[in-house]
Amino acid sequence: MQVITDSTVRAVLKERPAISHKGDFGRILIIGGSQQYGGAAIMSAAAAVYAGAGLVSVASDLSILTALHTRLPEAMFIDYHQPFMQWRATIHSADVLVVGPGLGLSSFAAQLLNNLLQTVHPKQTVIIDGSALTLIGREHIPLPNANIILTPHQMEWTRLSNLPIDQQTVAANQAALTAYPNAILVLKKHHTAVYQHQQVQKLTIGGPSMATGGSGDTLTGIIAAFCGQFGTNYQTICAAVYTHSAIADELAKTQYVTLPSQIIQALPHYMAKIAHQS
Amino acid sequence: MQVITDSTVRAVLKERPAISHKGDFGRILIIGGSQQYGGAAIMSAAAAVYAGAGLVSVASDLSILTALHTRLPEAMFIDYHQPFMQWRATIHSADVLVVGPGLGLSSFAAQLLNNLLQTVHPKQTVIIDGSALTLIGREHIPLPNANIILTPHQMEWTRLSNLPIDQQTVAANQAALTAYPNAILVLKKHHTAVYQHQQVQKLTIGGPSMATGGSGDTLTGIIAAFCGQFGTNYQTICAAVYTHSAIADELAKTQYVTLPSQIIQALPHYMAKIAHQS
Amino acid sequence: MQVITDSTVRAVLKERPAISHKGDFGRILIIGGSQQYGGAAIMSAAAAVYAGAGLVSVASDLSILTALHTRLPEAMFIDYHQPFMQWRATIHSADVLVVGPGLGLSSFAAQLLNNLLQTVHPKQTVIIDGSALTLIGREHIPLPNANIILTPHQMEWTRLSNLPIDQQTVAANQAALTAYPNAILVLKKHHTAVYQHQQVQKLTIGGPSMATGGSGDTLTGIIAAFCGQFGTNYQTICAAVYTHSAIADELAKTQYVTLPSQIIQALPHYMAKIAHQS
Amino acid sequence: MQVITDSTVRAVLKERPAISHKGDFGRILIIGGSQQYGGAAIMSAAAAVYAGAGLVSVASDLSILTALHTRLPEAMFIDYHQPFMQWRATIHSADVLVVGPGLGLSSFAAQLLNNLLQTVHPKQTVIIDGSALTLIGREHIPLPNANIILTPHQMEWTRLSNLPIDQQTVAANQAALTAYPNAILVLKKHHTAVYQHQQVQKLTIGGPSMATGGSGDTLTGIIAAFCGQFGTNYQTICAAVYTHSAIADELAKTQYVTLPSQIIQALPHYMAKIAHQS
Repeated sequence: MQVITDSTVRAVLKERPAISHKGDFGRILIIGGSQQYGGAAIMSAAAAVYAGAGLVSVASDLSILTALHTRLPEAMFIDYHQPFMQWRATIHSADVLVVGPGLGLSSFAAQLLNNLLQTVHPKQTVIIDGSALTLIGREHIPLPNANIILTPHQMEWTRLSNLPIDQQTVAANQAALTAYPNAILVLKKHHTAVYQHQQVQKLTIGGPSMATGGSGDTLTGIIAAFCGQFGTNYQTICAAVYTHSAIADELAKTQYVTLPSQIIQALPHYMAKIAHQS
Repeated sequence: MQVITDSTVRAVLKERPAISHKGDFGRILIIGGSQQYGGAAIMSAAAAVYAGAGLVSVASDLSILTALHTRLPEAMFIDYHQPFMQWRATIHSADVLVVGPGLGLSSFAAQLLNNLLQTVHPKQTVIIDGSALTLIGREHIPLPNANIILTPHQMEWTRLSNLPIDQQTVAANQAALTAYPNAILVLKKHHTAVYQHQQVQKLTIGGPSMATGGSGDTLTGIIAAFCGQFGTNYQTICAAVYTHSAIADELAKTQYVTLPSQIIQALPHYMAKIAHQS
Repeated sequence: MQVITDSTVRAVLKERPAISHKGDFGRILIIGGSQQYGGAAIMSAAAAVYAGAGLVSVASDLSILTALHTRLPEAMFIDYHQPFMQWRATIHSADVLVVGPGLGLSSFAAQLLNNLLQTVHPKQTVIIDGSALTLIGREHIPLPNANIILTPHQMEWTRLSNLPIDQQTVAANQAALTAYPNAILVLKKHHTAVYQHQQVQKLTIGGPSMATGGSGDTLTGIIAAFCGQFGTNYQTICAAVYTHSAIADELAKTQYVTLPSQIIQALPHYMAKIAHQS
Repeated sequence: MQVITDSTVRAVLKERPAISHKGDFGRILIIGGSQQYGGAAIMSAAAAVYAGAGLVSVASDLSILTALHTRLPEAMFIDYHQPFMQWRATIHSADVLVVGPGLGLSSFAAQLLNNLLQTVHPKQTVIIDGSALTLIGREHIPLPNANIILTPHQMEWTRLSNLPIDQQTVAANQAALTAYPNAILVLKKHHTAVYQHQQVQKLTIGGPSMATGGSGDTLTGIIAAFCGQFGTNYQTICAAVYTHSAIADELAKTQYVTLPSQIIQALPHYMAKIAHQS
């Protein structure tokens, strides 16, 4: 299997054009969080902001509002409990949507996910993570015609693919992915792999320092920002996945565990190092 | 067109007199923020505090209170939903007002802006930004007799000037500005320009690392603090605009994106470097 | 008495296996906090996250929710005022429970502690600290069949052992501990000692810079994370206690007081230094 | 007039005894803050914690709760709107009280101040600052029999002494202070002076970088922590005042403005440098 290296990141991550404005770097909408899992949406949003997204909004429970504005004043807030029609326009105007981090499995979450996926249009990118993956598997929610990115860990992939973890071979995963023909699959595990149709590449970096709550949420934000800036395609997603693990590995030289907030802080520096060299 | 250089900043930014107190460095009142855009008012206030303003208050929605006190205990809070007469005195006693960051376009916002502009007196400086610019253009709200600073990006300037972006030449902008005779115009774009009457100077620094949500909010806070400390005039505003971009450019050497919170943190250091050399 | 040295930490704290996920590093549930003492639960949780725990949840008063998500987005929140049966499953699925930091002495706290201790199963580790120790002493609450860790300071130990501080000799403490046969005792004082059955070891590090509010809360989080990652046993707990004081001593070279938040930040670095050398 | 130098700090600030616990370093209670001025109480409390106070509580408005727990989990919170008798015991058990930072001038504040001053006992230290000074001057509230420290700036001193600023000579201040026989006066201005009976010493350090909102609040916390650790007396207070300005001057080498939060962060380092050398 082909290995993702920093040359993928170098190919994707270019210096910004001198004449540009924040609208050029993607409107990201994170839909997630709940009273119990509020931090997940905040980490996803923070990763998006620090990875260079132009404009980042979070649609969440009101209980998240203050924590979001405090940690990340750069982001905007939308109350996802307001009638769907009232913020449907916000969904429509986003370039990239992340749905799932910390959303939970309530009937409200299922309904919101349904409404959202019916609203999405073909030019949009939708990153589906965490509880949203479980809901899709459980409630057989069809995926819309859009640029879909699925980011399950192995157990969540079981729920979507019906493949037990020990049967998740490359061939089996590729076969299962045909059920989601417009999706790119980021299968998170030791040596995360990225699948699209018959294409598959894997990481050989990233380590156990990343095995901590919030790693996956952070990855969704990085992918979202990369898609918003560099366009949604297979290479962009491989570059985002590599960036996440490369930063963690660098931090792991001096840290036993590498926390999401630390990886997020390091994003602008890592990205500058790559872009300035390219 | 004349270029703004660091010699402008050196001319404006002087060592503080040994005998001085916080009242000498300006009372700033930021009027903005809302549930959705709370971070904007916080970033404007934080920029003002870190750029040396003596006393900074934020008039905003109650939902911002905790985030403000948490991020910026140095600032004071006023609930802008209380009856206007109850906090009119606070407006009156400010040296510099910033109106707009994160205020939104609600009818409440329009009414508040109207009340505010009718309350302003000629010695005050009023920096008008973001949604307040849109409201003024849309509702044809007349500008008061005061030291007005307009900080539109190009699309907002279209709303005020009726000039499409591609017709925003220097001459056309100067002509359009005659409709706002007591205003200094900071037209934000690649190579931001500052206009007053027939005077115009432009930046040649600042780059695409600044193309992120909150950049404009941060700039309003810097301008407010500079006016509060060094007096409102054309040179002061050019110095503030230069300072914002000079810090971003310095950070951009090692960061792909330069976030408002990082630029804010760097303000006291940049200003010391300039002042200690002058 | 045997002295705990860094060789204990080196024996316990091993490099993580390359193939591992957050579930391998312990599910920690902190039960504590209250309106008055909210910070205690947050510091305990933060210490657990930074010491490498896989997943950390805090069951607390709703007034803590926003402060938790803001300081520590990596942690999850549970409202401990909801009917006990609704979150009993969360208790059941935890590997390590911390009960007490900032819980207070209300009748609600006593009832919660009772419910909790009746729910615990033999494979779980329960770290009992602060007000929970006082409640157990005062209300003669029996300890459950589980891996119990008691972390009293000397006055709290008096409440459990009926030994006045000046009679807390090693022999007397060992005798008193027979009343809690399945407990390991961490007796916090100048030269903290760890007791289990006839075994006792003491610290000779740690100093007065640690004499500040929150030190004990921080220690509970470190112990929880170490038990979650390295298994609950006498050596693990000695290693956790040593780690806390070793970090404080290092910081105390340049700080008069070493605050919990600073010790927490230093955890991943100290742990890497030990693990990378072993 | 005698000048306060670092030899005063060296005489006061000693290494902590090896055997000590947080109870040895003072119980501090900050009474202040309000919706509008919440940050003031938080800065005072943070300064106390970082200057080494053993235990710090804040009695304030509920709107401050979350910001306090977020910024300073080391501190405890008390709702000062609860019936006074319910938290009278907390006041009684404090070693040092700070009253005033951000309290405001409402009738509630006046009543609270009255209740508080009637509750204080002779062994306690009470630092009276900000709005509490104005209330005492305006409502002629008598000072209790306790160790009183007054920390007015010149205008507040006018309200207490009836001396216009230009008549605040040393002799006149000493004469006016006879009306407050058990008080030490910290008169804040360029070259702050500390008065007790016929004794007076002044600072010659400290500069205009400190002229920013929150400087005075920070000073109260440092004084409180020093009194809690080193005993309330003239030398201790001179040492606290010197410490505040010495840190600011050091930071001012590279900062145009030195913010309270930055001075607070630097406290443990400055204090270690002094103590380790003594």
